[in-house]
Amino acid sequence: MNTENEPAKRRGRRPGGQDTRTALIEAARTVFRESGYEGATVRTIATRAGVDAAMVNHWFGSKENLFAQAVLQLPFDPQELIATLLEGEVEHLGERIVRTFLTRWDETEGGVFPALVRSVAGHEQAGDVLKDFFLKQVFSRIVAKLNVDDKEFRATLCASQLIGMGMVRYVARFEPFATTDIETVVAAVAPNLQRYITGEIS
Amino acid sequence: MNTENEPAKRRGRRPGGQDTRTALIEAARTVFRESGYEGATVRTIATRAGVDAAMVNHWFGSKENLFAQAVLQLPFDPQELIATLLEGEVEHLGERIVRTFLTRWDETEGGVFPALVRSVAGHEQAGDVLKDFFLKQVFSRIVAKLNVDDKEFRATLCASQLIGMGMVRYVARFEPFATTDIETVVAAVAPNLQRYITGEIS
Repeated sequence: MNTENEPAKRRGRRPGGQDTRTALIEAARTVFRESGYEGATVRTIATRAGVDAAMVNHWFGSKENLFAQAVLQLPFDPQELIATLLEGEVEHLGERIVRTFLTRWDETEGGVFPALVRSVAGHEQAGDVLKDFFLKQVFSRIVAKLNVDDKEFRATLCASQLIGMGMVRYVARFEPFATTDIETVVAAVAPNLQRYITGEIS
Repeated sequence: MNTENEPAKRRGRRPGGQDTRTALIEAARTVFRESGYEGATVRTIATRAGVDAAMVNHWFGSKENLFAQAVLQLPFDPQELIATLLEGEVEHLGERIVRTFLTRWDETEGGVFPALVRSVAGHEQAGDVLKDFFLKQVFSRIVAKLNVDDKEFRATLCASQLIGMGMVRYVARFEPFATTDIETVVAAVAPNLQRYITGEIS
């Protein structure tokens, strides 16, 4: 009975336990915001969380994955995400990308997208965090797998639309965009993203 | 000779002179950043500039126009801008919009677009300044003149692409987007903006 609420047994920090994972995520958010993606080290994050650096590997596998889960609140590893997105038909890739991001971000009221923008706007490493995620981890990897020209330009065009979508829906909260249901936004935005991925852009 | 450099005659603040205009622009940038568009008053801006509030009217005509010139660094009144953009063929509206913004922002290395994003990300009035400009002053006015459905949704979709373009080119500086020549960007982005304005979006 009531197995989801066993505070007596589950509470208290235990090395390697869920508390460690939570502490690492909280520490990661702070460190990534302060130092940017490149500047943040696994060691600094672990120290701030008060745990051994090996715990980062144990729980997240890599700094990249910790970043994805802590800052972008993606429920998966970027590499897995790319693999999943690329599984279906190429001509519906734009649709799958828009739906995946909206669904995940909507669940967490934009996740930390607003914090991400704030960190980008307020720091020397302006753009590093956004660049690493949207470009290096997501769109550059997607276009790399496709038979298209101007891969890097296409990746940045895609990033411009996805970041703009995040700005308008979660940061600036323009109505009606901010509260329009996901499928209506997908119908409106996905064909534009698709054109950037596989369409004629010159 | 050397008429452009007559410091002895030209310097010193004079009521109603160019110095007043400059002081108002500087004060406006600070006040809009601190208080957002709605919160900023002509009186507060004039007080901070150390001039009479009537000078705002004299130099800028309105708070809206002061905002456009100080914060967005547009060389014209938003209403004039809309009128000009709407002059040509509707099917090339997206092209004219992208080219106009890129040209102006490129001349000033993004103008204050990065500062605008910073102000949006860091304040309670998050989004007010961006919303007032991109939505109320620009895109809502454009779609209002057109024979299209879902006007307000279209306006927000347009804003998402234009803001995303500004983020990638001037704030996050994703390459190659950040340094690609204007006409190449226009060719890539304008058809997407055009679809948001007049295309099938559902």
